[in-house]
Amino acid sequence: MSDDTGEAPIQTGDATGVLSIDAMGGDLGPEAVIAGLARAIKKTPAMRFIVHGDKPVIEALIAKRRGLSDHCTVRHASGVVTMTDKPSQVMRTGKDTSMWSAVDSVRSGEATVCVSCGNTGALMAVSMLRLRKLPGINRPAIAILWPSRNPSGFNVMLDVGADVRADADDLLQYALMGMSYARNGLGLTRPRVGLLNVGTEENKGRTELREAHDRIETVAAEADFDFVGFVEGGDIPGDRVDVIVTDGFTGNVALKTGEGTARFVRDMLGEAFRATILSKFAAVLAMTSLKRLAARIDPRRVNGGVFLGLNGTVVKSHGSADETGVAAAVGLAWDLSKSGFSDRLKTRVAAVTASVEGQE
Amino acid sequence: MSDDTGEAPIQTGDATGVLSIDAMGGDLGPEAVIAGLARAIKKTPAMRFIVHGDKPVIEALIAKRRGLSDHCTVRHASGVVTMTDKPSQVMRTGKDTSMWSAVDSVRSGEATVCVSCGNTGALMAVSMLRLRKLPGINRPAIAILWPSRNPSGFNVMLDVGADVRADADDLLQYALMGMSYARNGLGLTRPRVGLLNVGTEENKGRTELREAHDRIETVAAEADFDFVGFVEGGDIPGDRVDVIVTDGFTGNVALKTGEGTARFVRDMLGEAFRATILSKFAAVLAMTSLKRLAARIDPRRVNGGVFLGLNGTVVKSHGSADETGVAAAVGLAWDLSKSGFSDRLKTRVAAVTASVEGQE
Repeated sequence: MSDDTGEAPIQTGDATGVLSIDAMGGDLGPEAVIAGLARAIKKTPAMRFIVHGDKPVIEALIAKRRGLSDHCTVRHASGVVTMTDKPSQVMRTGKDTSMWSAVDSVRSGEATVCVSCGNTGALMAVSMLRLRKLPGINRPAIAILWPSRNPSGFNVMLDVGADVRADADDLLQYALMGMSYARNGLGLTRPRVGLLNVGTEENKGRTELREAHDRIETVAAEADFDFVGFVEGGDIPGDRVDVIVTDGFTGNVALKTGEGTARFVRDMLGEAFRATILSKFAAVLAMTSLKRLAARIDPRRVNGGVFLGLNGTVVKSHGSADETGVAAAVGLAWDLSKSGFSDRLKTRVAAVTASVEGQE
Repeated sequence: MSDDTGEAPIQTGDATGVLSIDAMGGDLGPEAVIAGLARAIKKTPAMRFIVHGDKPVIEALIAKRRGLSDHCTVRHASGVVTMTDKPSQVMRTGKDTSMWSAVDSVRSGEATVCVSCGNTGALMAVSMLRLRKLPGINRPAIAILWPSRNPSGFNVMLDVGADVRADADDLLQYALMGMSYARNGLGLTRPRVGLLNVGTEENKGRTELREAHDRIETVAAEADFDFVGFVEGGDIPGDRVDVIVTDGFTGNVALKTGEGTARFVRDMLGEAFRATILSKFAAVLAMTSLKRLAARIDPRRVNGGVFLGLNGTVVKSHGSADETGVAAAVGLAWDLSKSGFSDRLKTRVAAVTASVEGQE
C-alpha cells in the first residue's frame, strides 16, 4: 500500500512494464476498471498491473476474467476517495485510500505510471503531495489529447484544469511539458506550439499572455520546437498546431464546450436519421462509415488527462469511464511508460530551466 | 454620415422600422450586404434601411435587386474600416467611414439598430464613442445566440469578446443584460441564468466568480429571473440554462472552440459519407434530414453578435457573412428593433442599479 508496508515490489530492476491502478472511486466502481484491464491486456499482453482497492472484491472480479490474474498484484486499501471529497481533506486523512496507495506505487518506483478514475482535485492533491513537483515547475498541469485534423488525429491541450490561474512563467512551462508530451505521446519530432488567445495579433489579449508569448518565442529554437504564436479556439481541433497552451480555467471551459458541442451535433444527427423512413434506411446503409466517425470523435477513445510536472506520471481517466474508457486510459499510460516519458520530461524541463536561469 | 450633414432623417417620429446598415468592411464587400438586404425584405417587407458606404457602388448594387430601392436611403461615406485597422486609430480618424456613419444613424435616432460586418474591435470602439455607455454599465458586452437543446433552439452567451476581463460587478451587469436579451430575443418570460465556471460547486473557481455568484443571486428574485448558479462548458449547448454569463476572454474562446468543433464534426461526417458507394447512396437518401441538421447548426443562421450596454443597439455580423448571414443579422436587428429592446434594456439596468445602490 505505502512505503511502510514492507511489501516487496513485484519486479526488481525494470518497472517499465508495470502500471499502478486505482480500482476504486470511479462512477461505475471496480467492475468497469477490472473489465478495462482485461480488455487492455488483450491488445498488449506485456502489461503488468498493481491494482489498489478492496482486496476481496477486486480479487473476485479479477478471477472472473480468464488470464487476468497473471498480470495483476492486488494491494489492499480500505478507504475510497469519493467524487465529493475535498482535496484538502483527502490530503490530511486519505492515507488508507486506494488513490493514495496507487500514487505511492509510482513514488516507490515499483510502477512507472498511475491510472485513476477518481476525483480530479483529490488525485492532483495526492499526486503533488506524494510525488512532488519537478524542480523548476511551479504549477503542474493536466494535458489531454483532442481529436483534430492533424495527421496523428490529435492535438495536445494543457492545462485543462489543474489550476484556475497561470502566469507567464507557468505558461512557458506548459509549453515545454506539452511539447514533450506531443513527442512521446504522438511521436512528433518537432511539435508546433501555440498560445491560446482571443486573436492572433501579437498585441492582443491579457498582459500575461503577451509576456508568455515573448518567453516561449525566446526558448523555442533552443528547445527544438516551432512556436506559431497566438492561436484561437477554432484551432483546437485544427491542423495549425500540435500543442495548445492555456491556463486551467480557459482550458477546462474549452474542453467541456468542445465535448458538449460534439455531443450536441451527434444527438442532432441521430435525430435527423430517425426523422423519416428514408433516412432510417439511409442510416442502415451508412452504418459502417458512421461507426468509423463515431469512433473518431468518441471521447472514451481519447480518455485520459495526464498530470505533467511531477516526479512520475499520473493518468486521470474520466470518472464515468466504462470498460472502453478505462482500456484507453491504461493504453495511454502504457505508451508513456514504454517511452520513458517521466524521465524525458524531467530532462527537458531541467535543461530549459538551467538555460533560462543562465540568461537571467 | 454624421450629425453635421444637415440631412433630414428618412422618417419623422417612429424610427422603429428603420435599420442602419454599414455596407462596407465585410470580407465579401458590399455585394454580399446588398444581397442580404434583398433577401431580408422578401421575408419582412416592412423593413426600411439607411445604407452607408460608397454611394455610386451601393446604388448600382441596389438597382440590380428588384424593389429594393424602395426600402433604402443611401448615405455616402468615402472611408472604409478594414479588418486590420486598429480601433484607437479608427476612433481618431474614422469620421468619414461607413461604420462611423452607420452608428451615427442610431445616435441621431433616425434608425433603431445598426448592422455591420466590419472589424469587431473598431465597431465596439466607435459604438462606445458615439452611443456612450448606459448609466450604471461599466463594460459593454457582446452577446450571441448559441444553438442548444432548449425549446427555443438557442441559448444566449455573453460576453464573447467586447473586453478580455470582467470583475464581479461587470458579470452582474452581463447577467441583467443577457436576461433582458433572452426575454426580447428569445421571447422567454423568466430566463434561467448561469455563471460559467470550471465546476458547479459554490466554492470553486476564481475569487471574482464567487463574488459574482453572490451578487447575481441577490438580485435574481427582484429582477424576475432564475439564477441556477455555476454552469460548465458542457451546459453552453445544453438545456439547463438560457443565459450563460462569462468574461469576454473565456466567452470568445468557448465560442470559437464550439464553432471549430461543430465544423470538425461536420467535415468528418462528410468524409464518412464519401467513404464508400453504399454510404454515398445513403447520403442521397438522407439528404432532407441532413439538410435540416445542417441548417440547425449552420452558424450563418445565428449570425449576429449584439452589443449590449450602450444607448442604442448594434448588431455585429460575421466578417465573412454571405447573403444568408447578412439576412440573418438583419432579421435579428429587426426583431430587436420591433420589441423596443434598447429602451427595455435601459429600464431594466436602471431599475437594478437603483436597487443595488439603495441597498448599499
